[in-house]
Amino acid sequence: MARIVQKYGGTSVGDVERIKKVAERIKGTRDEGNEVVVVVSARAGVTNELIARAKAVCPDPSERELDQLLAIGEQETIALVAMALQGIGADAVSYTGAQAGIFTDKVHTKAKIQGINPKPMEKELKAGRIIIVAGFQGADDEGRITTLGRGGSDLTAIALAAALKADKCEIYTDVDGVYTADPRVVKNAKKIPEISYDEMLELASSGSKVMQSRSVEFAAKYDVVFEVRSSFNHNPGTIVKKEVAYMEKVVVRGVAVDKDQAKVIVSNIVDKPGSAAKVFRALADASVLVDMIVQNVGRHGVANLTFTVPQTDTRKAVKALEPVLAAIGGGQVAVHEHIAKLSVVGVGMKTHSGVAATLFQSLAEAGINIELISTSEIKISVVIDLDRVEEAARVAHAAFHLDQV
Amino acid sequence: MARIVQKYGGTSVGDVERIKKVAERIKGTRDEGNEVVVVVSARAGVTNELIARAKAVCPDPSERELDQLLAIGEQETIALVAMALQGIGADAVSYTGAQAGIFTDKVHTKAKIQGINPKPMEKELKAGRIIIVAGFQGADDEGRITTLGRGGSDLTAIALAAALKADKCEIYTDVDGVYTADPRVVKNAKKIPEISYDEMLELASSGSKVMQSRSVEFAAKYDVVFEVRSSFNHNPGTIVKKEVAYMEKVVVRGVAVDKDQAKVIVSNIVDKPGSAAKVFRALADASVLVDMIVQNVGRHGVANLTFTVPQTDTRKAVKALEPVLAAIGGGQVAVHEHIAKLSVVGVGMKTHSGVAATLFQSLAEAGINIELISTSEIKISVVIDLDRVEEAARVAHAAFHLDQV
Repeated sequence: MARIVQKYGGTSVGDVERIKKVAERIKGTRDEGNEVVVVVSARAGVTNELIARAKAVCPDPSERELDQLLAIGEQETIALVAMALQGIGADAVSYTGAQAGIFTDKVHTKAKIQGINPKPMEKELKAGRIIIVAGFQGADDEGRITTLGRGGSDLTAIALAAALKADKCEIYTDVDGVYTADPRVVKNAKKIPEISYDEMLELASSGSKVMQSRSVEFAAKYDVVFEVRSSFNHNPGTIVKKEVAYMEKVVVRGVAVDKDQAKVIVSNIVDKPGSAAKVFRALADASVLVDMIVQNVGRHGVANLTFTVPQTDTRKAVKALEPVLAAIGGGQVAVHEHIAKLSVVGVGMKTHSGVAATLFQSLAEAGINIELISTSEIKISVVIDLDRVEEAARVAHAAFHLDQV
Repeated sequence: MARIVQKYGGTSVGDVERIKKVAERIKGTRDEGNEVVVVVSARAGVTNELIARAKAVCPDPSERELDQLLAIGEQETIALVAMALQGIGADAVSYTGAQAGIFTDKVHTKAKIQGINPKPMEKELKAGRIIIVAGFQGADDEGRITTLGRGGSDLTAIALAAALKADKCEIYTDVDGVYTADPRVVKNAKKIPEISYDEMLELASSGSKVMQSRSVEFAAKYDVVFEVRSSFNHNPGTIVKKEVAYMEKVVVRGVAVDKDQAKVIVSNIVDKPGSAAKVFRALADASVLVDMIVQNVGRHGVANLTFTVPQTDTRKAVKALEPVLAAIGGGQVAVHEHIAKLSVVGVGMKTHSGVAATLFQSLAEAGINIELISTSEIKISVVIDLDRVEEAARVAHAAFHLDQV
């Protein structure tokens, strides 16, 4: 007998029929003799509907009231999933975030989990019941409902797995695992059976949309092993865990593409200490997330700064830069949106040289020009022309023999 | 400055536009310098939608899960009303039943309020905030959500008014008060400015659908004065309170009609002690609500029992009676559904004789036949033919000069 936490996203519980299917799967896990705790999201679309209704009564509602409103999305699905289980003869009980003892700070719409009281749930599990917990939500010390922000339901599942010392945590989603590359782009992409937290994090920050970094970080911190798998089939998924010895054999784990970046070039700024700091301070103050940064010192004591930002932030970035350039005495800003970021990720890089050389050479042979390069211990990212990025992904995938893992 | 509890039903908060109108009214009350606590129901129709969704996943869901599901109806409206208030510059905060400290027993779907902790709300009121509380719901001592059953939002408002020692409790509904008779039937029916709890209770049990008896009983027990009025206009409504001296001048307060009753006749049963008890025990065990009861002893030691039951219960009643008649040695059951109950109600009856005589005579003059009579201290009810009941209401209304109050 194992203790298993499962998480089903909004698409998996999108309507009555899917809720019934999910209930069958949950009951199957219980019938194998396991203790089962299930985390569910709101039905797909419900959160957006509720936000639209809120905006219709008030253009700028308080975040406390938004949380109070949004929390009903999951409260609906927990009750319906528990009922669907009862309908097929399983003993199930639903818990809101507050009822599950998920305590958070008071930062509405993006609260952080402070602790979980596992006692009431331990009692239910002992009594043989399946527990259905609302993802994405908790309550502060005054009993006010908070929500955890994007990716919150995954976080709930991983935090519950840690608090309940679960043997397994299964994140059910609409993809059936983490692939060596996006299978829609690279036809012979392979599902990765096991991946380390670090690699998963680098893939998440490189445009692979399987999970938010935050949940992976939490899992790494509390050493929660979890599996990403599909609720629409029974294929094994990808197991995410701490680095293990054999992982080092694989140098590159996967290739990720991010098309939502823009390149910003600040040229001809005076090359003196503090100029770059002023530029990036201004961007930080405007909450612009800057990713890759490259600085070239040009002739005549002027420098060029190039960096990437999310496309949605480019206007904000340009607006934030104008007063800075005036203050530091000149410089021009240019934005290139027709670019994409390609990253290769793998913990094996730490101990293998030549990864960068292999990547650059393969792209050069394909005639693909590299505009920017940045590296971390386990990742190499390049910015290239948007029109060539899918081809580049296939080239890199082949260069590292990822179809053979 | 007064402390006012207001309650708005599902029609009053039925859509975004109505929610905005309700917010204007609430803000108006606050702007007059009052402390305001508002109880709201779910949007009209939402509860039925949720029940339909529940039945779609499970024909017979547990009542605990039903409560968990149904409670989201009010949680939506409290957040939206609070936001609508914020949108017009008022400081408002929403509370679910649990957050408002409404503690109940564990009888899901028809829980009883055990107590209310007014402290968190006192703090908000002191800070000048308008509080929006979810009607119809509470939580038990384990934090599980319970619902209060039919008329639950009125009950929440009256219980809050008692716990917060409010100066006024206003029940907003889609009628603008209690009338001497249904104005659709009796054209010159008058709005009753003040009415006693007892009269309100008798009217409620006589088919006047303004409020459930339960809330009136609660108000009487805790001596909460409340006003029934319309959210669609600013007319004064009907104030419901303990009997006051001048009330005695009015002998009959109003006329009520109930068309949802059926008459059941059990004839030719052996007239021996215990026969009637067995009949009514069987009906009680089948949860059939028996209203008026008349027994005639016939010839040859046989008796006839006649009583009224809600039309929805007639089939259940007949089914429950069959084994009893077999056991007590014979008798026949007949059902007449083509009847209605007419009641005249007034605390003044206690000290005035002749009310019954006036009623019977006025009906006799109109040629309306009385099939059954039952009386209480402050009510006289008669069962008559369904086709004549509206005429009878007009006749009785005129006989007691109710158009002149």
